[in-house]
Amino acid sequence: MAKLTKLDDIVSLCKRRGFIFQSSEIYGGLASCYDYGPLGCELKRNVRQAWWKAMVQMRDDVVGLDSSILMHPLIWKASGHADHFSDLIVECKKCHTRTRVDHLTDKDGRTAEESGGEPADTKDKVCPNCGTVGNFTEPMAFKLMFETEMGANADDRMTLYMRPETAQGIFANFRNVLDTTRVKVPFGIAQIGKSFRNEVTTKAFIFRTREFEQGEIEFFCEPGTDDQWYEHWKQQRFDWYVSLGINPDNLRMRDHAQDELAHYAKGCVDIEYRFPFGSGDWQELEGIANRTDYDLRQHQRGMRSINDWIEAGRDLTKIELKEESQDYHKGPLSYFDEQQKKRYIPYVIEPSAGIDRSTLAFLVDAYDEEELEGGPRNLLRFHPDLAPVKAAVFPLVKRDGMPDIARNICDGLKKHFAAFYDEKGAIGRRYRRQDEAGTPFCITVDGQIKEDNCVTVRHRDTMVQERVNVDQVLNYLRDGMDNWMDK
Amino acid sequence: MAKLTKLDDIVSLCKRRGFIFQSSEIYGGLASCYDYGPLGCELKRNVRQAWWKAMVQMRDDVVGLDSSILMHPLIWKASGHADHFSDLIVECKKCHTRTRVDHLTDKDGRTAEESGGEPADTKDKVCPNCGTVGNFTEPMAFKLMFETEMGANADDRMTLYMRPETAQGIFANFRNVLDTTRVKVPFGIAQIGKSFRNEVTTKAFIFRTREFEQGEIEFFCEPGTDDQWYEHWKQQRFDWYVSLGINPDNLRMRDHAQDELAHYAKGCVDIEYRFPFGSGDWQELEGIANRTDYDLRQHQRGMRSINDWIEAGRDLTKIELKEESQDYHKGPLSYFDEQQKKRYIPYVIEPSAGIDRSTLAFLVDAYDEEELEGGPRNLLRFHPDLAPVKAAVFPLVKRDGMPDIARNICDGLKKHFAAFYDEKGAIGRRYRRQDEAGTPFCITVDGQIKEDNCVTVRHRDTMVQERVNVDQVLNYLRDGMDNWMDK
Repeated sequence: MAKLTKLDDIVSLCKRRGFIFQSSEIYGGLASCYDYGPLGCELKRNVRQAWWKAMVQMRDDVVGLDSSILMHPLIWKASGHADHFSDLIVECKKCHTRTRVDHLTDKDGRTAEESGGEPADTKDKVCPNCGTVGNFTEPMAFKLMFETEMGANADDRMTLYMRPETAQGIFANFRNVLDTTRVKVPFGIAQIGKSFRNEVTTKAFIFRTREFEQGEIEFFCEPGTDDQWYEHWKQQRFDWYVSLGINPDNLRMRDHAQDELAHYAKGCVDIEYRFPFGSGDWQELEGIANRTDYDLRQHQRGMRSINDWIEAGRDLTKIELKEESQDYHKGPLSYFDEQQKKRYIPYVIEPSAGIDRSTLAFLVDAYDEEELEGGPRNLLRFHPDLAPVKAAVFPLVKRDGMPDIARNICDGLKKHFAAFYDEKGAIGRRYRRQDEAGTPFCITVDGQIKEDNCVTVRHRDTMVQERVNVDQVLNYLRDGMDNWMDK
Repeated sequence: MAKLTKLDDIVSLCKRRGFIFQSSEIYGGLASCYDYGPLGCELKRNVRQAWWKAMVQMRDDVVGLDSSILMHPLIWKASGHADHFSDLIVECKKCHTRTRVDHLTDKDGRTAEESGGEPADTKDKVCPNCGTVGNFTEPMAFKLMFETEMGANADDRMTLYMRPETAQGIFANFRNVLDTTRVKVPFGIAQIGKSFRNEVTTKAFIFRTREFEQGEIEFFCEPGTDDQWYEHWKQQRFDWYVSLGINPDNLRMRDHAQDELAHYAKGCVDIEYRFPFGSGDWQELEGIANRTDYDLRQHQRGMRSINDWIEAGRDLTKIELKEESQDYHKGPLSYFDEQQKKRYIPYVIEPSAGIDRSTLAFLVDAYDEEELEGGPRNLLRFHPDLAPVKAAVFPLVKRDGMPDIARNICDGLKKHFAAFYDEKGAIGRRYRRQDEAGTPFCITVDGQIKEDNCVTVRHRDTMVQERVNVDQVLNYLRDGMDNWMDK
């Protein structure tokens, strides 16, 4: 049974315990940007690290990359973003609020898609701000890339874009990676980084934000093997969420219908999570697409257009991409398969995960409330790889040398992972605070240590307590964390 | 003796082995932005991780933060960046090249500072592009923050800045952290993240770039204790570089002269590294400043100015910050010391490290060339915490089951750290490739394993080889890495 966690509970916990704050809160907040506080930034670091470990470190066929946010503007011409990355919006003629056409609803709360109408027909649609019906401008394209200007000199000044996805930085480095490592197709390039989209409507806490973090892999394979790699990555990515503790009942795969697919995509599936908001709770966590050879071919066209762009005064809007050359399959972004003595443009499978969305899903899925004899307890049942703090160490009381012993244990653990020392308040309250932070283990030093050289290790999820020899605490915790999912 | 590494050697190695590429290289490159390739992104990840471990994980008095790049524009009014963050430049009247006034040199290659002249006097200065002497415009301020526009609606649209430093995100969250954790002054907030500056002249590979990464700590302390914390952080930060293998002969502290200090700063010191470029080789790696209570007081003024800003149509250029209130020391960013029953605005010590600059320093310092009997070898003597790959595993030859055994060992190690399997080419060449990548340990499986169940572990720096039982390899490597600096 899926739990009935409310988003409000999560937002409230995040704020109260310093997981996530609205950006610039003391200035009234900046819509749709968020800051990760002391616990939240550790959680997010762990999500990144878990992704990197599973996608790069553990695999022989994926290498990492960290490309810059600011890239050459022609990259966005080649990728199609400069011309086509926009939302169709209308403006209410009464209150001037702009709304995405596909988000407009009629009096019964149905979008055009839900009522089976034409998306551009706004006659029966209600302005979400002032309630006026059917009084909208014609639909217009609203560009989603943030623009800026770089350079101080006339001859190096140009309009740049803050990248709306990390993927294009990977395509732009495909040749570099081929030339400087010994990778052979099939192989992937993975990166984690910030992207930016000037969304018209933002949504639901950290679910849809204007500044966000992605974990993307472009996996290059021989045409004809792409279907099998597509299936491989669907499974790998689904399993990754489950391996980190997400209840599989709250996850599903949704294949895109043919008319949802981008024109270049051969297939696309969303891994969806049952988020506690929205009309339907199932929302995209990650998309996995078969992008064919589209991007590499487009960048070959882009590379052929550099001189046009320079001659046009480095103004993207004044040029069209050069046509593809007849022998494009032998172009600079082609791959020579030495075993088969064959040259081709690889196909690409792209698993594209939202790091913030994943973080939110891990928070929601870990959140639990229990009724105990002594009262309720809130806890986050994080997988230990994700838990911001792995172990908290307490002296039972502040005397008889217990604080010093506890501090020593804590300092020893800190060399290996995040640990937290706490001597304030009743022991029960200290446990509760750690439960709410998702700390899997609490270690308490009490007077008995002088007789048995042992401490009490208390397990977050079961509240079971065990005596463990001080010298074995690190190994005990490591074993517990390494074998977490086998329990 | 400091080594005489040339920057060109480093740039060439970085390009050849996939550490660092120019951004958008296939499009002719984007000036002053760089991409980290497969080895480089692992190195940079390790630099970040080493900083975080030492600055946050190991300390009880520093917590982490991850604030957004886009922040409320008033933050930059309060911090002073919106009005004052600019370089004084002149434009050559002949070729229209713009140059920072402080970078202009006379015929003898001396800047105004070096020749003792007035900075604004350009009569004898040479245009670095066309060589014309003394034919410049009047000096003018060139703003260094990148601007962009956010929001789709008239009532949420505003000019934003891409942050030029991560520090202000920390000040903006000081209150949030106080309210949601149990930190007590003295304590610090640390974060790592990207910043952006539209530099007029960029420099020397990844040394001065327009997109760069910082690791900053704002350490809040009681006024009167600031001098002692300033000394503490100078020492801590200097020691950090040394603990990760930088030769102390290549590091120095340079105190800013009184006339170099920002008007609010009580003291500032640069940790400098002897980089292999520039007129003088000593260049800033990190600055540590005593920023007093300036920033928190400024943000209190900023918070008081929100209504002015809204009334001015959210246009920063149309407002001035409100004056400081008389009882500013009791303001929203003040701290109440419960033990002393005293309220005050904390002083701040700020260690501000460049993650890219550190990465470059670690590369330069680790680079070595040795003449051996069999010919020269290039190597990177990275501290194992920084090495992109910790261990490479080789079968001596591709038969007798050696590849399977080697793969098994490698897969076992990958659960714990980055390891690399390689079976291609002569064993000597495989060692050399790993030397050049900075891999501290190579493990070779040979035929003798059937008799002694041992493999050969070869040490990068000494080239010494030892036989180690297969079951002990992980512990052997862990010990070697944990005790690296004790050797």
